[in-house]
Amino acid sequence: DPSLKVFTLNSNKGLAHEITEHIGVRMGESSVTRFSDGEVQINIEESIRGCDVYLIQSTSAPANEHIMELLIMIDALKRASARTINLVMPYYGYARQDRKARSREPITAKLVANLIETAGATRVVTLDLHATQIQGFFDIPVDQLMGVPILADYFQTKQLDDIVIVSPDHGGVVRARKMADRLKAPIAIIDKRRPRPNVSEVMNIVGNIEGKTAIIIDDIIDTAGTITLAANALVEHGAKEVYACCTHPVLSGPAMERIENSKIKELVVTNSIQLDENKKSSKVTELSVAALMGEAIIRVHENSSVSTLFD
Amino acid sequence: DPSLKVFTLNSNKGLAHEITEHIGVRMGESSVTRFSDGEVQINIEESIRGCDVYLIQSTSAPANEHIMELLIMIDALKRASARTINLVMPYYGYARQDRKARSREPITAKLVANLIETAGATRVVTLDLHATQIQGFFDIPVDQLMGVPILADYFQTKQLDDIVIVSPDHGGVVRARKMADRLKAPIAIIDKRRPRPNVSEVMNIVGNIEGKTAIIIDDIIDTAGTITLAANALVEHGAKEVYACCTHPVLSGPAMERIENSKIKELVVTNSIQLDENKKSSKVTELSVAALMGEAIIRVHENSSVSTLFD
Ligand SMILES: Nc1ncnc2c1ncn2[C@@H]1O[C@H](COP(=O)(O)O)[C@@H](O)[C@H]1O
Ligand SMILES: Nc1ncnc2c1ncn2[C@@H]1O[C@H](COP(=O)(O)O)[C@@H](O)[C@H]1O
Repeated sequence: DPSLKVFTLNSNKGLAHEITEHIGVRMGESSVTRFSDGEVQINIEESIRGCDVYLIQSTSAPANEHIMELLIMIDALKRASARTINLVMPYYGYARQDRKARSREPITAKLVANLIETAGATRVVTLDLHATQIQGFFDIPVDQLMGVPILADYFQTKQLDDIVIVSPDHGGVVRARKMADRLKAPIAIIDKRRPRPNVSEVMNIVGNIEGKTAIIIDDIIDTAGTITLAANALVEHGAKEVYACCTHPVLSGPAMERIENSKIKELVVTNSIQLDENKKSSKVTELSVAALMGEAIIRVHENSSVSTLFD
Repeated sequence: DPSLKVFTLNSNKGLAHEITEHIGVRMGESSVTRFSDGEVQINIEESIRGCDVYLIQSTSAPANEHIMELLIMIDALKRASARTINLVMPYYGYARQDRKARSREPITAKLVANLIETAGATRVVTLDLHATQIQGFFDIPVDQLMGVPILADYFQTKQLDDIVIVSPDHGGVVRARKMADRLKAPIAIIDKRRPRPNVSEVMNIVGNIEGKTAIIIDDIIDTAGTITLAANALVEHGAKEVYACCTHPVLSGPAMERIENSKIKELVVTNSIQLDENKKSSKVTELSVAALMGEAIIRVHENSSVSTLFD
């Protein structure tokens, strides 16, 4: 279908090429570079007049660079008369700034939604938003894909026995429940409590983990503080071994060191965020979301439902 | 006046403090830092409810970081119930991407204007836009200040005799004319011409420069290619000595090396863009726009005309 064009920016070129291969289209010709002073320079090198453009970019670190690339590319596509501009954002940056936790804070997740619409996007396809409410920050259609099936399928093939799915906090229980359903396993919850101010947290565990293989699941692993403390607490409380998994491996600051030094046996992530070389480790397994994203693009382009991908 | 509050972001903290001193107000309390993964974290640490906020930031390099800081701060100010949000932007980044020079290019200067309005700014005060048309990219009031008087005053005090003001290209003649009027000097124009494709440019000079002290003026000096070639051509054609000046010292890439190795005796710039340590040189003189910006803030706040600053 010549009206379907896929373009990529700089955040996830490897994934983007896997996606075009899955769909069976060639990658749109464009160059996204920098002028001498660091300003983004974009050239779209083929006509897109009247086309449905699918633009692949995660707003992962460096988030501000990746967001500006995205907005400038949308502007260029719009002015080049694209019929629709569909963002495929495997990772939606700034998603944790989704509410005013304190006075006089920005709500950057909403700002970014407004910026994307102002630039001229007509649709967003994304994966595991940190808060599902972010869909409502947009006035254009947002399709949200799920990473759980990909993670669950991987653990299924490992044929671990006597597993328990662990949520590292109360906010993640729904996600742990979904994973547990797929793996026909029970769940447990890490119940952090600070007995008094300035006293360190106590890690209670709600649910039975004794002698079991624990799989901790989260949406984002950033500095890996939560997940490594959880892993160590699970082992102390009698878990046989501990795996961890997440959709979005932000892995900033001390993350890799903490993971290496933790009781985590294997960390399973997706390529929604491209891993730098220094984050590749024998403990880290990367699963691809290319087939999922590619299918979603095909469905959107055919005007059929994306949610049935998860039946 | 307690309803006037000035805040600064990270691009020009030195200038911002000079501005608050000029106005006689204290700097608004805020912190603009980064989370571990590089996302912008902003805290406004005092109430601004019902206030007129003046926010100082140039969108100089790193432009994308500075733009995102600006947009996120505007979002925070808006949600904290500021009455008006007035951006004081000594340098407006992406101004050179103000038109489609080729097919399928973005118009990033317009995009940035849209982003600023979407975030919630109510007014912009800026200095020497690369193209005055950028004012029209906004639907909110834009006050444009001029750097020429500051540069002219400096050369006045040097008491150079027999000067000629030189525009490095045809686009800069109006600016050179303004400078020449203030200094009661004649003008000359560098008339670049490429005799045949793939043959290097010939630098003609229109106007009399023989034995004179030439002052080249431009709005932006970026890689300094144009200005250093112009300076050398002027000396070859008989100028006695050559000064250069501009409002916005972008000075990227090979700029400093080119200037050091050129026939330019002194480069005079403003602090619309903060100079990194490695751009400070005995050849570079930095003039402050603090008084100009401070006066402009006072005028805007009093609802009086900013343009009379240039009578
Ligand atoms: N990039 C970031 N890194 C760390 N914390 C963040 C980031 N962005 C937002 N936050 C904070 O994370 C909290 C929300 O996280 P959560 O409770 O997991 O939804 C808020 O207090 C935010 O201020
Ligand atoms: N940051 C930048 N550095 C160098 N050139 C740029 C930059 N931004 C835009 N341009 C180009 O500069 C040209 C416009 O410059 P001018 O003719 O001086 O207005 C256009 O062709 C732009 O593509």
